[in-house]
Amino acid sequence: MNIGNSDLKEIAKVIKGASKIALFPHVNMDGDAFGSCVALAHALRELGKECRIFISEEVPENLSFLDPEKILQTNNKDDIKDYSLAVMVDCGEMKRIPGREEVFDSFSSTLCIDHHGTTESCCQFNYIDPMAAATGQIVFDLINELILMEGKEPSKEAKKEIANAIFAAITTDTGNYQYSNTQKESHEITARLYDWGLEGNKVSVEIYESNRIERIRLTAEVLSKVEILAEGKVALAYCSQEMLNTTGAKMEETERIAGDLRGIRGVEVAIFLKEEGEKAIKCSLRSKAYYDVAKLATEFGGGGHIRAAGYTTYKDLKEAIEEIKERVQKDF
Amino acid sequence: MNIGNSDLKEIAKVIKGASKIALFPHVNMDGDAFGSCVALAHALRELGKECRIFISEEVPENLSFLDPEKILQTNNKDDIKDYSLAVMVDCGEMKRIPGREEVFDSFSSTLCIDHHGTTESCCQFNYIDPMAAATGQIVFDLINELILMEGKEPSKEAKKEIANAIFAAITTDTGNYQYSNTQKESHEITARLYDWGLEGNKVSVEIYESNRIERIRLTAEVLSKVEILAEGKVALAYCSQEMLNTTGAKMEETERIAGDLRGIRGVEVAIFLKEEGEKAIKCSLRSKAYYDVAKLATEFGGGGHIRAAGYTTYKDLKEAIEEIKERVQKDF
Repeated sequence: MNIGNSDLKEIAKVIKGASKIALFPHVNMDGDAFGSCVALAHALRELGKECRIFISEEVPENLSFLDPEKILQTNNKDDIKDYSLAVMVDCGEMKRIPGREEVFDSFSSTLCIDHHGTTESCCQFNYIDPMAAATGQIVFDLINELILMEGKEPSKEAKKEIANAIFAAITTDTGNYQYSNTQKESHEITARLYDWGLEGNKVSVEIYESNRIERIRLTAEVLSKVEILAEGKVALAYCSQEMLNTTGAKMEETERIAGDLRGIRGVEVAIFLKEEGEKAIKCSLRSKAYYDVAKLATEFGGGGHIRAAGYTTYKDLKEAIEEIKERVQKDF
Repeated sequence: MNIGNSDLKEIAKVIKGASKIALFPHVNMDGDAFGSCVALAHALRELGKECRIFISEEVPENLSFLDPEKILQTNNKDDIKDYSLAVMVDCGEMKRIPGREEVFDSFSSTLCIDHHGTTESCCQFNYIDPMAAATGQIVFDLINELILMEGKEPSKEAKKEIANAIFAAITTDTGNYQYSNTQKESHEITARLYDWGLEGNKVSVEIYESNRIERIRLTAEVLSKVEILAEGKVALAYCSQEMLNTTGAKMEETERIAGDLRGIRGVEVAIFLKEEGEKAIKCSLRSKAYYDVAKLATEFGGGGHIRAAGYTTYKDLKEAIEEIKERVQKDF
């Protein structure tokens, strides 16, 4: 269900007509944003085009295997200064490419490929399918359209790289085919990726099975202190600087803990507080089925989505814990 | 690749010829064993047959949604005393159905549907495909063969139940489509399940997001004691009866820990020992990329797959730990 102003054929034609193409994934790149870009970049290079993924941050460690030699990516705008087409990938708003807006704006021809329902056509050509579980699925269809149009198949090696990148995009955005956005097409496309040489296990190991032992020890430490409140409806945990010191882990290695808390039976709201140091406490909120955590976060000056939100507060960890405990229990 | 003595058509014919059929999943039922049985039971009932899943233990809590009213299962052998066909599901050895061997042996007609490479044809009719990622995939093919043969489709409601059960089988045995056993067919079949009414997210929440808090506490306790051996290539952990007592968790709630251990960066072999009581220690073995744990398990009288295997030993927990530590370190 495309809500953009261009169909896939038109998008493919625009790309076919360009010889130097820059891809703009959204900031805080995830598997879908980066995977989609990597797949598209490989495909375009196989068609004889120049293509670079223009970024302003480091690629997350568990996704760096998709471009290990950093041949597809650049953070230097001079590398793309004579490029003619700019493509927003997995986003469709200027604020999702902070620090790169000016470069994007300097392009005469712009294109958007996205699956976010909140995206409005902000480019010259836009293909936005909010029903697609991942932008990677759209990109795979697009690559196939381009192959048909050009009458030229990518090399075997490139096909494998494309398959691995598309799989990375789909598996991360569907939460391993578990989330409610997962669709028949997610599995149909993944099945086809096997014909392209997909190394599904290798990709999964890189993304999900490369946890440092320090992360495991920190997770154990945090989970050993989970508090259950509101007759089982609320789960609360925290990570202090001392816990990081004891285990040798980094704060970013707690990223999946809020989800673990929500995964407790009967829990509707998961609260996870991170002591970032200097009295800055970041609080992540998750809900399972009906509670609006965005609203709760807003009360503390934060924001987010109904099921995933957060805020920052400048208090002692202990005070911050008491504050949110007291507040959330009023709602249950 | 069927290594049994009967092809799928023959298996379907045997089932077609029976009117009362008992299913025997392996002990320590997992999603594949129980899911495959539930799907098959629904399909056979739709074809007008009597069918019961004969078990000797409680269905794991996170799988109980597949048969919430317990209409498909029984632990009373009198319920199946006039049944004519016994089917081993997801196993093919008498020792995998302890306490039920005698009942199984009393059947004149026996059948095995399995995907374990170590299974040898132990029934009259055997369909064993070690390439199938899950027995659920074979069962889905079998159900379709039966539908073709009988010329009768299951009801819409039954189709949904079958789809959910097959999905439960595949998603658990492939580790959410991440493990190396995952194949093109796993995704192809899952895609087809959507046409049957699959509720993928609902099943995933039941299986993966309904963890008891006791499970979280036990996981934390077990992971806090992980040992790293062989210069990071081996991770070892254990669960004692005392740990269960302290946390209030059940042994079955440790099922994902072996996977967590394998998910540690650099770890090739994960070893997880469970003190089942009375000096029986169950040891789960997992490998990431190249080590054959089935071979290792066989040395201790067990078996399984190359990447996931196990054995039982009758020793003190401490002795069992020392024994496997000593053995595995020889290979690194």
